[in-house]
Amino acid sequence: MTDKHKIIERLTEISGRDNILHGQEDMISLSYDGTPLFEQLPLCAVSPKNTEVLCQIVKASHELDFSIVPRGTGTGLSGGAIPLSNSVVVMMHHWDKIIEIDEKNLTAMVQPGVITQNLHTAVEKKGLFYPPDPGSMKICTIGGNVAENSGGLRGLKYGVTRDYVMGIEAVLPDGTIVSLGNKCVKNVSGINMKDLFVGSEGILGIITQILLKLIPQPQDQRTMLAFFNTFEDAGETVSAIIAEKIIPCTLEFLDQITMQCVEDFAKIGLPVDCEALLLIEVDGHTQIVDDEAKQIIKICNRHKAKDIQFAQNSDDAEKLKTARRAAFTALARLKPTTILEDATVPRDKVAPMLRRIQSIATKYNLAFGTFGHAGDGNLHPTCLTDERNTQEMHRVEKAFEEIFEAALSMGGTLTGEHGIGLAKKKYLAKFELPANLQLMKSIKQTLDPNNRLNPGKIFDL
Amino acid sequence: MTDKHKIIERLTEISGRDNILHGQEDMISLSYDGTPLFEQLPLCAVSPKNTEVLCQIVKASHELDFSIVPRGTGTGLSGGAIPLSNSVVVMMHHWDKIIEIDEKNLTAMVQPGVITQNLHTAVEKKGLFYPPDPGSMKICTIGGNVAENSGGLRGLKYGVTRDYVMGIEAVLPDGTIVSLGNKCVKNVSGINMKDLFVGSEGILGIITQILLKLIPQPQDQRTMLAFFNTFEDAGETVSAIIAEKIIPCTLEFLDQITMQCVEDFAKIGLPVDCEALLLIEVDGHTQIVDDEAKQIIKICNRHKAKDIQFAQNSDDAEKLKTARRAAFTALARLKPTTILEDATVPRDKVAPMLRRIQSIATKYNLAFGTFGHAGDGNLHPTCLTDERNTQEMHRVEKAFEEIFEAALSMGGTLTGEHGIGLAKKKYLAKFELPANLQLMKSIKQTLDPNNRLNPGKIFDL
Repeated sequence: MTDKHKIIERLTEISGRDNILHGQEDMISLSYDGTPLFEQLPLCAVSPKNTEVLCQIVKASHELDFSIVPRGTGTGLSGGAIPLSNSVVVMMHHWDKIIEIDEKNLTAMVQPGVITQNLHTAVEKKGLFYPPDPGSMKICTIGGNVAENSGGLRGLKYGVTRDYVMGIEAVLPDGTIVSLGNKCVKNVSGINMKDLFVGSEGILGIITQILLKLIPQPQDQRTMLAFFNTFEDAGETVSAIIAEKIIPCTLEFLDQITMQCVEDFAKIGLPVDCEALLLIEVDGHTQIVDDEAKQIIKICNRHKAKDIQFAQNSDDAEKLKTARRAAFTALARLKPTTILEDATVPRDKVAPMLRRIQSIATKYNLAFGTFGHAGDGNLHPTCLTDERNTQEMHRVEKAFEEIFEAALSMGGTLTGEHGIGLAKKKYLAKFELPANLQLMKSIKQTLDPNNRLNPGKIFDL
Repeated sequence: MTDKHKIIERLTEISGRDNILHGQEDMISLSYDGTPLFEQLPLCAVSPKNTEVLCQIVKASHELDFSIVPRGTGTGLSGGAIPLSNSVVVMMHHWDKIIEIDEKNLTAMVQPGVITQNLHTAVEKKGLFYPPDPGSMKICTIGGNVAENSGGLRGLKYGVTRDYVMGIEAVLPDGTIVSLGNKCVKNVSGINMKDLFVGSEGILGIITQILLKLIPQPQDQRTMLAFFNTFEDAGETVSAIIAEKIIPCTLEFLDQITMQCVEDFAKIGLPVDCEALLLIEVDGHTQIVDDEAKQIIKICNRHKAKDIQFAQNSDDAEKLKTARRAAFTALARLKPTTILEDATVPRDKVAPMLRRIQSIATKYNLAFGTFGHAGDGNLHPTCLTDERNTQEMHRVEKAFEEIFEAALSMGGTLTGEHGIGLAKKKYLAKFELPANLQLMKSIKQTLDPNNRLNPGKIFDL
């Protein structure tokens, strides 16, 4: 049995009175994250002021029988930061220092609470580039990005967060500190433990410091929107661009419902009578991006693009990108509850997957808007619903299960960039190979035999 | 106690008589790999004809108390394929099928025994590119590359083997099969287990199938050699190239002794009166590589390059690259024993590290040639010695220990691309953070509690 008062007392001793929250309003604000349908009040929350204090907090969890939920800014979309009833939230958002930008080795050492966009701004001032750009980049933290292995719009060309993590310092569930990786571009000294923590959703350790790889900033960009009458035309355009050996930095998709919502919301002059929009951006050397953009226009025309809008300058490009960036917000205005998933397929399966989502939506009489990263097959089928309507919510659940099943049958995955967390653990339990799942569980049990760290996420033990 | 005859009998039953070797000559040929100073005869060797048979072999190791050493073509440089006295070698080199090259999703599915260069050739025919190019690429296998997370000359721009592994099928030490990852570019479904096997040196599982990422083939290359009077000038040139935001695909270094040996061996007209040579290759779009090559020549001149040789065509480029490719072979001609290490430092520490290696060689009165990947700090200090001279071998050991210590003190690592294996496990035990080492061991113990799979590699339990 957890004794809340004793826990608060002990954590106050460890962390100092100013670093503890336990008032009802504060607990409510920490009871949810960016994921709909999940909430739970924690016992209390603590802001460790340094790694030493954090280790003591972790050790206290064993003495006093509480669980720990690490939290950045709570923007996660799979419930990774939702407490359990016996949880203490460990708040890491104030660990927000960019410790070093090393221009010689092209690395940045950061604390986990750094806001992703702040890192972008800081490195871009030096002509450098940190590509991962999750949708929430203005408010999410690098620590959360690492814990979830976040993607973003630039994943097709530049990869995801994992591809930029060179080193991790973390506190393990037993309170010891590991420091994995370093500034060496090549490093095979022992079994690779760093990558175990990237995407581990806070269940294996609390990340306290991150060494990130940077790359030179691309010199130039060309941005365009192409509109298509059918998913198939858009899907074939995506395949044809890749087949021409062009890897755009951004190759995003919006369906008609999403376009309509964006147009109602942002009034940017989108046509609303076609089935698919592609936002395409190429970046790199000025001469190349010009060449590539011309080739892409030809490919779009060859695949029956109805219209192509081409950005003449960077303001124009920003306007075009608004169409994609506003997608979630625009859809969310329509109904009280917006459930955004990220079932992902190999990129040559994008068009069949979009058709499946459409037919599943019709079958269950649900409103779905779908947008996402067409270039890497990472789609965001988004259900517009109302969680108070239990009858409809039941259909929503059935529909998503069919969507996940369809994605997997096409060689896809349950989640491309949001993680499993609470939201998808029942699907992981159902669809993952038993041997794979057993392997994951055995790692968790080895590192955290008492299941103290973010329990109940990814799987139940 | 292992009973050799019983083991051979059982493995013959499982695998068929044609798939077992136990003659003395065969055992001798399997008693060593590319690493000097280590050898041990195995009990016998078996060629599993499929995954089912392989699982049975693994299960038999528990019944009959033997250990298993997976082996490709035995080119490893850290002793990863050296048997123990109770080992059965599981030969995987005949698993050599390229199962699929998927041009739409830019992936290749291969068996582990595929020779790296055969994969290069196959994908290049389709205009695609698989960048990892370890020195032994003409004879090594992809399975070995994955097990060791091999690097190569193109690591600076394109990364190492890990960066191209999208999926792994492996048989675990208990005989179960896991299948991790898929063709989705983004995939965060559960804890990342795939990367645990990349670079695990055969101690966690036997890899049976690999899904690799491909990229479009670069359109063009420019290749040049630049000669410098001092390490410092060469080192500053490397830093300056990166500081100008140019990332060459190849940025390799040879010291004077290595140049002299290469010139004696290959007669390609290298000047032998300067301290450092850089081999620099940029690749990509024709216009860019021209621009970048011009910028690089300016940078080399600004940093006091004594001479620059510029390839006029691809034959010429091959000739220049011979200088680097011949380095190990040329050095190996001088003395009976050649010990090649791969202590690695952050790239801004290349010049100080070269000075340290030089002074350590002088201190211990040893002949060292150093070459390697200057762009990624991955150096190959190579000691030319004679293993029969025990007194000198003692000094060699002292010298390497100091070299590793120096690399670590500069924020480096024991091994950039060869792995720990047998050769460096004493250094890992000495220099690695105890908490990191404990974490690695706990993972091994969880997956392989009886220590059947490639025991004694990386660490002793």
